[in-house]
Amino acid sequence: MITVSIVGASGYGGGELLRLLLFHPHVKIQQVTSESLAGKLVGRAHPNLRKITGLKFSSMADLKPCDVLCLCLPHGAAMERCGELLGLGERILDLSADFRLRNPADYPIWYGHDHPHPEWLGRFVYGLAELNREEIRTARHIACTGCLAAASILSLAPLLRAGAVDPSRIFIEGKIGSSAGGNKADQSSHHPERSGAVRSFKPTGHRHTAEMLQELDFGTRPEIHFSGTAIELVRGILITAHTFVTGGQTEKDIWGIYRKAYDKEPFIRIIKEQQGIYRYPEPKTLAGTNYCDIGFERDPHTDRLVVMGALDNLVKGAAGQAVQNLNIMFGWDERTGLEFPGLHP
Amino acid sequence: MITVSIVGASGYGGGELLRLLLFHPHVKIQQVTSESLAGKLVGRAHPNLRKITGLKFSSMADLKPCDVLCLCLPHGAAMERCGELLGLGERILDLSADFRLRNPADYPIWYGHDHPHPEWLGRFVYGLAELNREEIRTARHIACTGCLAAASILSLAPLLRAGAVDPSRIFIEGKIGSSAGGNKADQSSHHPERSGAVRSFKPTGHRHTAEMLQELDFGTRPEIHFSGTAIELVRGILITAHTFVTGGQTEKDIWGIYRKAYDKEPFIRIIKEQQGIYRYPEPKTLAGTNYCDIGFERDPHTDRLVVMGALDNLVKGAAGQAVQNLNIMFGWDERTGLEFPGLHP
Amino acid sequence: MITVSIVGASGYGGGELLRLLLFHPHVKIQQVTSESLAGKLVGRAHPNLRKITGLKFSSMADLKPCDVLCLCLPHGAAMERCGELLGLGERILDLSADFRLRNPADYPIWYGHDHPHPEWLGRFVYGLAELNREEIRTARHIACTGCLAAASILSLAPLLRAGAVDPSRIFIEGKIGSSAGGNKADQSSHHPERSGAVRSFKPTGHRHTAEMLQELDFGTRPEIHFSGTAIELVRGILITAHTFVTGGQTEKDIWGIYRKAYDKEPFIRIIKEQQGIYRYPEPKTLAGTNYCDIGFERDPHTDRLVVMGALDNLVKGAAGQAVQNLNIMFGWDERTGLEFPGLHP
Amino acid sequence: MITVSIVGASGYGGGELLRLLLFHPHVKIQQVTSESLAGKLVGRAHPNLRKITGLKFSSMADLKPCDVLCLCLPHGAAMERCGELLGLGERILDLSADFRLRNPADYPIWYGHDHPHPEWLGRFVYGLAELNREEIRTARHIACTGCLAAASILSLAPLLRAGAVDPSRIFIEGKIGSSAGGNKADQSSHHPERSGAVRSFKPTGHRHTAEMLQELDFGTRPEIHFSGTAIELVRGILITAHTFVTGGQTEKDIWGIYRKAYDKEPFIRIIKEQQGIYRYPEPKTLAGTNYCDIGFERDPHTDRLVVMGALDNLVKGAAGQAVQNLNIMFGWDERTGLEFPGLHP
Repeated sequence: MITVSIVGASGYGGGELLRLLLFHPHVKIQQVTSESLAGKLVGRAHPNLRKITGLKFSSMADLKPCDVLCLCLPHGAAMERCGELLGLGERILDLSADFRLRNPADYPIWYGHDHPHPEWLGRFVYGLAELNREEIRTARHIACTGCLAAASILSLAPLLRAGAVDPSRIFIEGKIGSSAGGNKADQSSHHPERSGAVRSFKPTGHRHTAEMLQELDFGTRPEIHFSGTAIELVRGILITAHTFVTGGQTEKDIWGIYRKAYDKEPFIRIIKEQQGIYRYPEPKTLAGTNYCDIGFERDPHTDRLVVMGALDNLVKGAAGQAVQNLNIMFGWDERTGLEFPGLHP
Repeated sequence: MITVSIVGASGYGGGELLRLLLFHPHVKIQQVTSESLAGKLVGRAHPNLRKITGLKFSSMADLKPCDVLCLCLPHGAAMERCGELLGLGERILDLSADFRLRNPADYPIWYGHDHPHPEWLGRFVYGLAELNREEIRTARHIACTGCLAAASILSLAPLLRAGAVDPSRIFIEGKIGSSAGGNKADQSSHHPERSGAVRSFKPTGHRHTAEMLQELDFGTRPEIHFSGTAIELVRGILITAHTFVTGGQTEKDIWGIYRKAYDKEPFIRIIKEQQGIYRYPEPKTLAGTNYCDIGFERDPHTDRLVVMGALDNLVKGAAGQAVQNLNIMFGWDERTGLEFPGLHP
Repeated sequence: MITVSIVGASGYGGGELLRLLLFHPHVKIQQVTSESLAGKLVGRAHPNLRKITGLKFSSMADLKPCDVLCLCLPHGAAMERCGELLGLGERILDLSADFRLRNPADYPIWYGHDHPHPEWLGRFVYGLAELNREEIRTARHIACTGCLAAASILSLAPLLRAGAVDPSRIFIEGKIGSSAGGNKADQSSHHPERSGAVRSFKPTGHRHTAEMLQELDFGTRPEIHFSGTAIELVRGILITAHTFVTGGQTEKDIWGIYRKAYDKEPFIRIIKEQQGIYRYPEPKTLAGTNYCDIGFERDPHTDRLVVMGALDNLVKGAAGQAVQNLNIMFGWDERTGLEFPGLHP
Repeated sequence: MITVSIVGASGYGGGELLRLLLFHPHVKIQQVTSESLAGKLVGRAHPNLRKITGLKFSSMADLKPCDVLCLCLPHGAAMERCGELLGLGERILDLSADFRLRNPADYPIWYGHDHPHPEWLGRFVYGLAELNREEIRTARHIACTGCLAAASILSLAPLLRAGAVDPSRIFIEGKIGSSAGGNKADQSSHHPERSGAVRSFKPTGHRHTAEMLQELDFGTRPEIHFSGTAIELVRGILITAHTFVTGGQTEKDIWGIYRKAYDKEPFIRIIKEQQGIYRYPEPKTLAGTNYCDIGFERDPHTDRLVVMGALDNLVKGAAGQAVQNLNIMFGWDERTGLEFPGLHP
């Protein structure tokens, strides 16, 4: 049993991490923090955990050392407190964007400000197991990935690494649910306005693009044209990527590339069926699961290859990914605590 | 052409009234107020009105006299400013609850405070045309009804007036969409929380009950047991009322009572079909319309009569009702400006 | 390890049972049947189970004896085949309505036809653990309950058993999602029609009322007035019950009654909080879980007590209940295989 | 007053056309056909029209000559019956794809079969007023456009015509609601499956692409890479198009191009605001309206220009477009019968 504390556990990412770890056989939750709910039962923030646990929120000021400290703070909060926070855990799992980008110069471009502690950036491993499993195994600091970045990178990495698609022509449309915006209410999330919306919230300049550019560079820096649209959905992401095959690769060739890359991956499924209504990845069946489902279709008229990737932004895109990394770091079966298969219907 | 001004026009009720009146052939909108958006185009609050009108919001302080002043303020705001506001219009249409209850003693019971100007209560007519058309015709002050009250009263009044159902056993379950909560965002309306909710927001003590008790008293004060549940819906109400027939009335008898009461009503439809998926009132087809659809079913095992009433809380439950009252007051066809039939699907 | 087969496993109830049992540590799934999908992978019907299991559907004709046979057939199918089916399992768990009513005379009243094998009715135990745990422990045949019946009975049984509410005045409004209608598409479930609907599908005469009348009879046959409304929701039920306390019982008294009845129940939670947006039972947080959450509120103006009960119709209202019964029959911890706590948001 | 008959009026497109024309001041509906509902009130198919009209469906066999015959049949039905149908109206408005493509060779490519009456193709005008107003004015046969094609073409035509974007690099993601699939229920539209879905129904090969290629050819045949995704929505389309400016055009330049093209268009609005939650086109506010809202954003890091276009697939994408064409053909104000501004919220 290891001890884990979660900083910022009243939010959606932190709550999801708590939900997963409460049922993890090798983990003892030591502390969970929330400044506004300190002293209150966690069920106050997360109704699904009522009567599941008697755990109460602590203040960050009362944090004690632990084996693994998970940071689920809003962007910018952890990077400001590197000194204070990063020493409290033998290992650190950060779920924000604060340590994802290796090049300090990327922060002003994509986040609009300098990183106050660029010396920490090199110590963090980008926590996508399917790309960096070996580094994660021995890492002490992990930066979990952005949700839209996770879906995009997992969908495209095998193709780009294999040179099967042109890195200079990548177009990604990310469709995403409302939970990705966090638990703070405002006019944009007000139900009468948000319900049924198809909102172009980030046609250009989405911050997760920076991660895609960093992680999908297999020798050639790719050009990635990303747009984000918020749709009627609470949990879930579907990215639709338009790419172009470089040498007439057939659907069978593409199958082969994915199979080689992901055959042994416990949380990647290639979804491509001849018939039925679930022929391609569908985020609605992934809510609560750690799967990333990937599908593709070759355009019969052109060289275009359309790739679809789906996942739950709060699980494979955040908390589940963190648990998967934890499992890798400690040598446990990667699926531990992540067995939930999702619901149908 | 008459001049109409709308106070509190950036909210949902005020915005809907503005939408309707912009297309009303006998009305000229003089001013619409919003303190926070004064000077801005109305499209800023109501995206559906962009390019439809060049009207801008004014501050309440700049209001000028007009033929009809419509008050769309939050509960309590108008009653505090009787002197200031009620003289600005030749006629007043209030859409809040501030002047709905005739008995000042009802305010502390249902609203938790005394009415500051009880002398005004007697001057307002309860603005439900189907009950009070003659008084409305000559009224100078109209209190439009609560949305759940409108659905409940319209559904039950003919039966109670005819003595066909027992006034001492009335159970009403009101299901309602999120727009009824107004346009102010808070945690309860935050999309990830509100989406898909089935929330018992008012199991007992709903304020609209006071109006039902007042308006459904046809000699015997009824006992009305009301509960309100918020469901996944933006616009719309369905009330389901359990009543008991007093003398073995058949479905045909009930038909007769409704027909007699509502045969000439332009905005009441009795919906009761043998087959199909729209056998009973369905609020989803009423969005944007001024209809109140009513249906019923006799329990074959008991004396119970279940009555269903549906309407759009922002139209027949608020702004459309106001326009209907306006039409009556000025002797125009009651349907003027209210012709929109709703969408399917 | 026991062997379990599921008859009718391509439907929603059967699929949910399969999902739960695939992760049950003491169960080996032997066969799952579907006539239309015989020979196909179960993932064809249930996309959430793709890559989780390599199990294929069998035809009912190929069923082999097993320890426990679970019947998930449409109403009427199992009762017709008693001889053929009921001998195939050492124990039988039926999820349909075919053996729920003890009195054969109730079938023509509520289901419109005689029961072809009334001799079997007495052998089945009504499978609601909270009421009949001891009988279930030794039963060989279990009739799992109707979903709306489960929510209603669990919510009201303690109060009626304690004599705290008047059995002659019970009004229940059941709000329910679309999955309760099964997996067969028709015009009523066509998305453009069903989406956003608030459909009075059974204002009177709902069949589950028969179970409520049977199971809530603690000496006095109750009078239960039930109406069912389909709302925008896939999984979930909220029942809102209006009852009347018999002797001025306070909220504290009611708390005591529920606590006494349910304190040790693993799947019942009393939800009643002073503040927040989850003050009362909310089905959206129960999707995928085996909880039945119960709340209540005393009307300050009358003797009315409003009781709310929420559950997932496919879990506590069907498959999860079956697993709970299985656990009881075999002496395992009742929570085995039912640990999923639900998602938020 | 002209006489109009609608063939196939029980479907969604036909029903919408009927709704609009019932309130059109210059139109008398002569006949509406439905084979399955012949003799029944139109309210049987369209609950929003109950009590609005006493019109009944006829059989196609009973059609009489009329001034304008509107064909709302499934794809392939009208082209088979050219001789029989096209002579019944002085003018023809076809809402299917049967006469949209001018080049007969396109039918086998995109629709998988030859056109049985290619001689008719040249007689039909492609009915998008913003492109072909002059031809429509004098046309006798109009082929109304595909819904996704309308949104895409209207969004991109001014840019391509002006040479402002590269015709060889156009990527369009179309998000669309369930009503576009028509009123026939099947497994794919079954509410438990379709609700909350984000379904890649046509990653490549969408038939509407053929219309885009035809209509967006301003000297250079464009290369259009289209994917379609069905989302949780009943009515509405949002297309997100990635294009590349050819000569460093700024946002102001793009504004100028759109203004020049659409300044006098009654149903095109350029939506691009600095703040608020409706900064870009939002289909939810367009339900029931004939608007096509268009917005755009220049990527600050590259030459990419993202263009968004929104409309109601049943109105501007079908029936409203037909009414607009009718108004043009008869010289009436184009907005006649199309004044509904849409709802908020």
